[in-house]
Amino acid sequence: MNHFFKVQSLEQVMALSHQFSAVSIEKVPISDSFFRVLAKDIDATHDIPGFRRATMDGYALHSGSTFGASESNPAWLEVTGSISMGEVPSFSIQSGQAAKISTGGMLPDGADSVVMVEHTEVIGGESAALTGIDREDKAPASYSPTVEIYKSVAPLQNVIDKDEDFKKREKILKSGTLLRPQEVGLAAALGICELPVYKIPKVGIISTGDEIVPIDETPQLGKIRDINSYTLAGLITEAGAKPVQYGIIKDNEEALLSACLKALDETDMVLISGGSSVGNRDFTVNVLSLLKDTEILLHGISISPGKPTILARYSVNHVKPIWGLPGHVVSAMVVFKIVVLPFLRQIQGLSSCKTKNSSILIPAILTKNVASAQGRTDFIRVKLVKQLDINLKDKYQIFAEPILGKSGLIRTMVMADGLLEIGENVEGVERGDLVNIIPFKRE
Amino acid sequence: MNHFFKVQSLEQVMALSHQFSAVSIEKVPISDSFFRVLAKDIDATHDIPGFRRATMDGYALHSGSTFGASESNPAWLEVTGSISMGEVPSFSIQSGQAAKISTGGMLPDGADSVVMVEHTEVIGGESAALTGIDREDKAPASYSPTVEIYKSVAPLQNVIDKDEDFKKREKILKSGTLLRPQEVGLAAALGICELPVYKIPKVGIISTGDEIVPIDETPQLGKIRDINSYTLAGLITEAGAKPVQYGIIKDNEEALLSACLKALDETDMVLISGGSSVGNRDFTVNVLSLLKDTEILLHGISISPGKPTILARYSVNHVKPIWGLPGHVVSAMVVFKIVVLPFLRQIQGLSSCKTKNSSILIPAILTKNVASAQGRTDFIRVKLVKQLDINLKDKYQIFAEPILGKSGLIRTMVMADGLLEIGENVEGVERGDLVNIIPFKRE
Repeated sequence: MNHFFKVQSLEQVMALSHQFSAVSIEKVPISDSFFRVLAKDIDATHDIPGFRRATMDGYALHSGSTFGASESNPAWLEVTGSISMGEVPSFSIQSGQAAKISTGGMLPDGADSVVMVEHTEVIGGESAALTGIDREDKAPASYSPTVEIYKSVAPLQNVIDKDEDFKKREKILKSGTLLRPQEVGLAAALGICELPVYKIPKVGIISTGDEIVPIDETPQLGKIRDINSYTLAGLITEAGAKPVQYGIIKDNEEALLSACLKALDETDMVLISGGSSVGNRDFTVNVLSLLKDTEILLHGISISPGKPTILARYSVNHVKPIWGLPGHVVSAMVVFKIVVLPFLRQIQGLSSCKTKNSSILIPAILTKNVASAQGRTDFIRVKLVKQLDINLKDKYQIFAEPILGKSGLIRTMVMADGLLEIGENVEGVERGDLVNIIPFKRE
Repeated sequence: MNHFFKVQSLEQVMALSHQFSAVSIEKVPISDSFFRVLAKDIDATHDIPGFRRATMDGYALHSGSTFGASESNPAWLEVTGSISMGEVPSFSIQSGQAAKISTGGMLPDGADSVVMVEHTEVIGGESAALTGIDREDKAPASYSPTVEIYKSVAPLQNVIDKDEDFKKREKILKSGTLLRPQEVGLAAALGICELPVYKIPKVGIISTGDEIVPIDETPQLGKIRDINSYTLAGLITEAGAKPVQYGIIKDNEEALLSACLKALDETDMVLISGGSSVGNRDFTVNVLSLLKDTEILLHGISISPGKPTILARYSVNHVKPIWGLPGHVVSAMVVFKIVVLPFLRQIQGLSSCKTKNSSILIPAILTKNVASAQGRTDFIRVKLVKQLDINLKDKYQIFAEPILGKSGLIRTMVMADGLLEIGENVEGVERGDLVNIIPFKRE
C-alpha cells in the first residue's frame, strides 16, 4: 500500500492535460454538427455571395449618377428595367440610368450601388416601375419612366460585393473551432453538406462506496442514494460528451478493478467518484496502481473543495485519463468543472480551451468577506443577483452572494449560479470587491 | 393587399409573449432530464441525508468531551469502537468516549460531532483503532485504546445533520425550473426516478425567396444557398428545442400557405425567413392574412437589424406563434435571439425567463464609439477580448470591439461573441463606456 499524497497546484495539474489527445474524427451532416468541434481547416471554395447583391429595396445605378443629389436638387435618372429575384439581369446600366431592384437581387453590369426606395420618386410610366412582383426582366423600352433620386450614394453603398463576405481560397474556419449556428451557416453558404468533426467522447462514471445505493432503492439507515452518477452525467452532457454509467461498486478492489477495465475499454475517460480521501476506504489509488501500463500522475490538488483528487494515465491502446473524484457531491461537481473539464476539452479537440481561463467569466461585486487559506485555491459557490444601478437608467450591476455550507450539501449547488475562484496567493476577498465568477449554465 | 406597417417597440413586442402558453407535459427518466424544464413543484418526501453523517475521517464523539482541548492540553478519550461505512452503529457514545469513523459514516447515538483524524493520536491498542478497512462494528472491548484529541470541536462540527440538506415536506424545486445537473442530483437523492417535464417544443423553419437554392445545389449566378434554415436550426437546438425544416418555398402564395399549414399542424412555432420587407416580395404578411383564425400582432419592430419582423397568432387548436423573419442572415439571427427566444422560453415552460433581461449579461468596456438612432433599439455585433489588468494580478478586463458590417454578411457573426444593445432613448455609446453584452454560446 503506497499511501503517498503528492499534492500539486491547480496550475501544475492543468499542464498535465497536454498528455492527452483528441478522439478520432468522423463526418456528419451539417444539420447534426451544431456545437460539435471542427476537425479540419475549411477554406472558401468560391467567393461569397458570388455576385454583387442589393441589401435594400430600391434602384441599382452607378453611384456617379447621384453625385450632389438632395431633396432640393434631385438627380433624374431613366428607369431602364426591373430585376427579378434570383435572375441575372439581361441588360447593363449606363450613367444616367437606374433599374428597380429588391433586397437580395443581382446588380446589372455598370451598377455599383443601390439607392433606397425611400429616397426616390418615380415620375411618369409608374406601372412599369412600381407594380408588384415583376417576374421578367424589362429591357429598356422606347418610353422609359424617370426616377427622382433625393440622396447621393457612395460606390458599393447598399450592396454586398461578390467577394465581400468571403473570398475564394480564404481560410474561413480552423480545426478545433466550436461549430455555433453561424459557423454551420457559413458551411451551408459554401455548399458543404458534411463536416469533419471530432467524435463525441464517451465518459465512464463509476460510483464507489459501501454506503451508496441505487436511486430506485430505499436506503436503509446509514446509507444514501447515488447522487454523483447523475450530477456527473449532467456535467458531461452539458460539456457535449456522452456519459456512460457503470453503476455502484462496493469497496472491493477486485470489483473496482474489473469495472475500471470495462470502462476504459468502452469510453475515452473514466471518473470514479468516492474513495479518494486518505481514510480507511482509500483504495481507488491502490486499484489504479494495479492497472497495467498506468501511471498515477496526481494524488491531491491544492484546491478546496476537491483536494483528494486522483489522476492516472492509462496507456494500453489510446492514452486515457482516469480520475478519482471526491465523494462529496459539491466537491465532485467543482472538481469536474474546474479540473476535469479542461481535459475533456482537450479530448474533444477544442483548440480555444487548452487553458482553464479561456472562457469568459462574469464580473460581479462581492456581498460578504470571504477568507481563504494561502497556498490553496478556493472555489466558493455564489448566487448571482442582478440589480438596476440606481444612478444609471438601463444599466445594472451584478452582485455575487457567497453560499457558505458543507460540500456534502447539494442544496448549496441548487442555490448557486457559479463559482468564485480565490487564488492560492490571496488571503481572502472583501465585501465590495470586484470579482470574476465562473458561471454555471443557466437561462 | 393591406400594406400596413405597424412598428412596435421591443418592449411592446415582449409583452405579446404572454399570449402564448407552454407545451404539454411528459414524464422522463432523470437521466434524460438534463436541461429540460420541470413541470410540477417537487417536495422533499423525507429528510436528506436522513441520518447524522461524518464529513471527515476521524473520531465521532460528544463535542463536550473536547472542551478546551489543545496541542498542549489534549483531551483523552476511550475508543469504544469503529463504524463501518453504510452501517448503523450497534453502540452509543458516552461522554469521554470516541468511535473511529470515515467520511460518510453514520454517527452513533450520543455523538454530535467528528474530530478530524489529523487532530488526534492513538495511544495504545493501535491495531483496533488504526487498521485498514474495518468490516464489522467493534463493540466496546474490555481493553480499549485511548485517543488524544488536540483540538476542540463544536456541536455538529464535521457532520451533516439528518435534515441539514433538505427537510421532509420542504418545497425543493419549483415548476418552471431549468434542470441543471444539481437539480437532477437532488431528485436522485430523493429517489425520484422520473420527472414531469415540459415536452421539447418543435419549431418549424420555412425559407422563402426565388433566389434561394438548397445547399447541395450549385447556385446559378444571381442565386445563393439557403443559410437561414441552418443558422435558425442551430439557434433552436441551442435553446433546447427541436428544429423541423420545411425547405425552400418559392415566392408563391399558395405554396407558402400550404407549407405554413403543414408546419403549424406539426410544430409548436413556425419561422418563415425572407419575404418580410416592404418590397415587391412582401407576401408573407398576405399569406398570414389568409390563414384561418390568425391575427397579425406585429408588422415591424423598432430595432436594427430586424425591423421588418412579422408576428401572427394562429389559434385553430393550440395557440401558436408564426414569425416572418428578415431574410438577411444577421438580421434573422439577431431577431431570433432577441425577440423570438423569449417566446420560445414561454412555450418551453421556463418560469425565470419571462422577460428579455432575465439572463446574465457580460459587462465589458467598449473600444470604439458607436452611434445609434433615437427611437430604435440597436444591436451591435461585438467581439469580446479578455486582457489581464496591468494593475491587478489575476484580474482581467473584458473589452467589447464593435464589428461593423452589413447584416447580410455571415462573416460578421462568425467573428462575433455577442451583441451590444443600445436602448431606443440612447443616442450612442462611447469608447471606454462600460456596456453589458448579450453573449453567444461559447466554450
